[in-house]
Amino acid sequence: MAEHNFSMQGTLGVLLASKKYSSIKDILVTMNPSDIAAVMNDLEGDQLPLIFRLLPKEPATAAFVEMDPDQQEVLIRGFSDKELKEVVGEMFVDDAADLIEEMPADVVQRMLASADPDKRREINEILKYPEDCAGSSMTTEFIALRPDMTVEEAIANIRQTAVDKETIYTCYVTDAVTKELLGYVTVKDLLLAKNANARIGDLMDPNVISVNTHTDQETVAQMLSKYNFLALPVVDMDNRMVGIVTFDDAMDIIEDEATEDIEIMGGMSPSEKAYLRATPFEVFRQRIPWLSLLMLSATFTGIIITYYENSLAAQIALTAFIPMLTGTGGNSGTQASVSVIRALALDELEFSDLPAVIWKEVRTAVLCGITLAAICFVKIMLVDRLMMNNLSVTPLMALAVCVSMALTVLVSKVVGCSLPILAKRVGFDPAVMASPLITTLVDALSLLVYFGVATAILA
Amino acid sequence: MAEHNFSMQGTLGVLLASKKYSSIKDILVTMNPSDIAAVMNDLEGDQLPLIFRLLPKEPATAAFVEMDPDQQEVLIRGFSDKELKEVVGEMFVDDAADLIEEMPADVVQRMLASADPDKRREINEILKYPEDCAGSSMTTEFIALRPDMTVEEAIANIRQTAVDKETIYTCYVTDAVTKELLGYVTVKDLLLAKNANARIGDLMDPNVISVNTHTDQETVAQMLSKYNFLALPVVDMDNRMVGIVTFDDAMDIIEDEATEDIEIMGGMSPSEKAYLRATPFEVFRQRIPWLSLLMLSATFTGIIITYYENSLAAQIALTAFIPMLTGTGGNSGTQASVSVIRALALDELEFSDLPAVIWKEVRTAVLCGITLAAICFVKIMLVDRLMMNNLSVTPLMALAVCVSMALTVLVSKVVGCSLPILAKRVGFDPAVMASPLITTLVDALSLLVYFGVATAILA
Repeated sequence: MAEHNFSMQGTLGVLLASKKYSSIKDILVTMNPSDIAAVMNDLEGDQLPLIFRLLPKEPATAAFVEMDPDQQEVLIRGFSDKELKEVVGEMFVDDAADLIEEMPADVVQRMLASADPDKRREINEILKYPEDCAGSSMTTEFIALRPDMTVEEAIANIRQTAVDKETIYTCYVTDAVTKELLGYVTVKDLLLAKNANARIGDLMDPNVISVNTHTDQETVAQMLSKYNFLALPVVDMDNRMVGIVTFDDAMDIIEDEATEDIEIMGGMSPSEKAYLRATPFEVFRQRIPWLSLLMLSATFTGIIITYYENSLAAQIALTAFIPMLTGTGGNSGTQASVSVIRALALDELEFSDLPAVIWKEVRTAVLCGITLAAICFVKIMLVDRLMMNNLSVTPLMALAVCVSMALTVLVSKVVGCSLPILAKRVGFDPAVMASPLITTLVDALSLLVYFGVATAILA
Repeated sequence: MAEHNFSMQGTLGVLLASKKYSSIKDILVTMNPSDIAAVMNDLEGDQLPLIFRLLPKEPATAAFVEMDPDQQEVLIRGFSDKELKEVVGEMFVDDAADLIEEMPADVVQRMLASADPDKRREINEILKYPEDCAGSSMTTEFIALRPDMTVEEAIANIRQTAVDKETIYTCYVTDAVTKELLGYVTVKDLLLAKNANARIGDLMDPNVISVNTHTDQETVAQMLSKYNFLALPVVDMDNRMVGIVTFDDAMDIIEDEATEDIEIMGGMSPSEKAYLRATPFEVFRQRIPWLSLLMLSATFTGIIITYYENSLAAQIALTAFIPMLTGTGGNSGTQASVSVIRALALDELEFSDLPAVIWKEVRTAVLCGITLAAICFVKIMLVDRLMMNNLSVTPLMALAVCVSMALTVLVSKVVGCSLPILAKRVGFDPAVMASPLITTLVDALSLLVYFGVATAILA
């Protein structure tokens, strides 16, 4: 589809330059709102309102919701009060709340003033929940049915109210007085019902899975994905239904959380902006904290090397194997931590699994360690001693390197698999324990092992 | 929910031990199929068929589909021909095809023999497409409407055929003769239609976005997520509609692809099994190829160090800074590669962006390099020279280390950001270019820079 947009972009650029607005409109109205938004994102500030006003109200709002925040701000600042009222009126409540979270205070004030009182109340309802929880990702626009309605009445109710609802296909049955969530019924159930006079209370499934307003949004997304639901109902502390989180929001959450984990595992603060849109200074700020921290922590490896400097001076050939050992240690540790971090993110692991995880990694490490040590011994004797004709590399030295290798792999795997689980236990993000941090820690450990073994074998 | 399952597991364990089967059944039928599957996955081989047979046909099949392949195999081998026929008959075509791909040949034969001829044809249709493409993830069970139907006829048609369809809420309008895809109409549109005699051809949206049977499934998932669709229609080379890919499959694909990328970026072959279920030998096989390859490639760093051994022997204090330099180089390169790999996965970057990416990374690297060099200089003079009283660490040596640091960061960022894009260009998975490979490459480069600079400044 990138190809498709690209060529479309070219056509639109030509039409724009020659001011063929009616053709531009004809093209845009055939496009999906997400694609219109992609076109809008690339427009200059003065063209943007011009093209936006070509669109009919409904696709215009749908595209507006998908645009980049800076373009949205440009548009809002250019809107008349009447236009703003229309756009806010068309928007779903959860989209309006998301937008408000991105805008500066003066824009927020104008937006809230443009919403009718009901919508303003609902937007404020969503805004009061902390970011990243179900309450802030939900929409308050869902179909609520009463248990004493008949199938016919329910369908009539849906017909009347559906226009404003984000999803109508799962309807929630709530108590007329307490608003308590009693069950759910799907439009499919209603269409397939044999008897138009059957009561919703009898037709509904009372085993309804719901989340609380304060449930973490990542958990909500995982549940939607696990149960294959179109939406999950959100209830407050008294089991009163207050909103739904829909599958499309869950997909975005799953992608965003994966991006965040990958960035943290790569030793960066998670970014809010797409890579190509971030300025070098923003990228710098995202990366420099970890880079400096990790650089300074390498002080320890420096101290270890300095401490063993004297034995090194005697056996300078030992130095040549340092990068191989620390590198292999870092890679082994990274592998174990990455496996565990991903399993934690997908909810496959708990703290109580720690012994099982360590035992699995120990056995894996023994297999890896022995294999690597054997390959390493052959490599040292063939490449370093024979091919490079370096006779200071003795079989005994090769033995020291290989024993260190096996031990380093063992230590790295155990450290790599336990740290993320322990981090999660004490409330840190396990992803922080990935590659860079593990590498630095394992660097120091593998040097200690190496010099310890070398001293024991060669001294 | 993990908590919830856990306590439920305890209750069920007690009931199982005391053989209270009717209570077990009462509990299971209130549960969601995904949760039933989780319970089943933990049962022993002899209890499994016993408990499975307690369930009514429909939830039994829904849970069966969600179970682990080894448990599914145990059940199928225990099924009578009649039972197998029932389960296969209940299953959606795409689930049946997925299952068949996991089972050994004799089980596949029995399953296909149990399917009625129509279903067998549809299963084979899906099986003929290569894995990882839209054709193999689609289901052939969708609602097809004709353009000359009225709204009333369309609803009647849905009522008649809905039971067997995976999703009914988006209906596809196809030509009666050619089966060509003409447009789509949602159940919401049908319910909201003012005139029951309106023709579907007039009501439908003809701007329908579709994918080809051979479109990569990751692209399909990205499109579903971008457009917020419940399903995407899949067409063959002649634009004949052959199936749909639904949002729940897209969610699984997005999660699986993120896991695969994370594993590859961590230096492992992607695994088919959940971490806790894989044996140590399976984990070993997943990890050893990269570990050995990377270990052997460290031969180059060894050769570089050996080559400069003589200058090292004179200035042995230089050795202590090797891990800090190679480490910072590795981290800088990893950060750049991770940013780029994720942007590629999310379709935010193309090959033509390479110059823009390099230019962004160069500017970021200058900011990072200068900051790190400054911190590093202070650290060396304070910690290494003053605190550790190591007078062989001269200001000139500190300068050499800091200049190397800045250059290393620059080289690493450029290498880290370009390799994934180049890899994608020549058809490799960009994720392969992450952490471990970049680290090894950057290790060698940073040593060359270090010794080059040190020789120039200190000689």
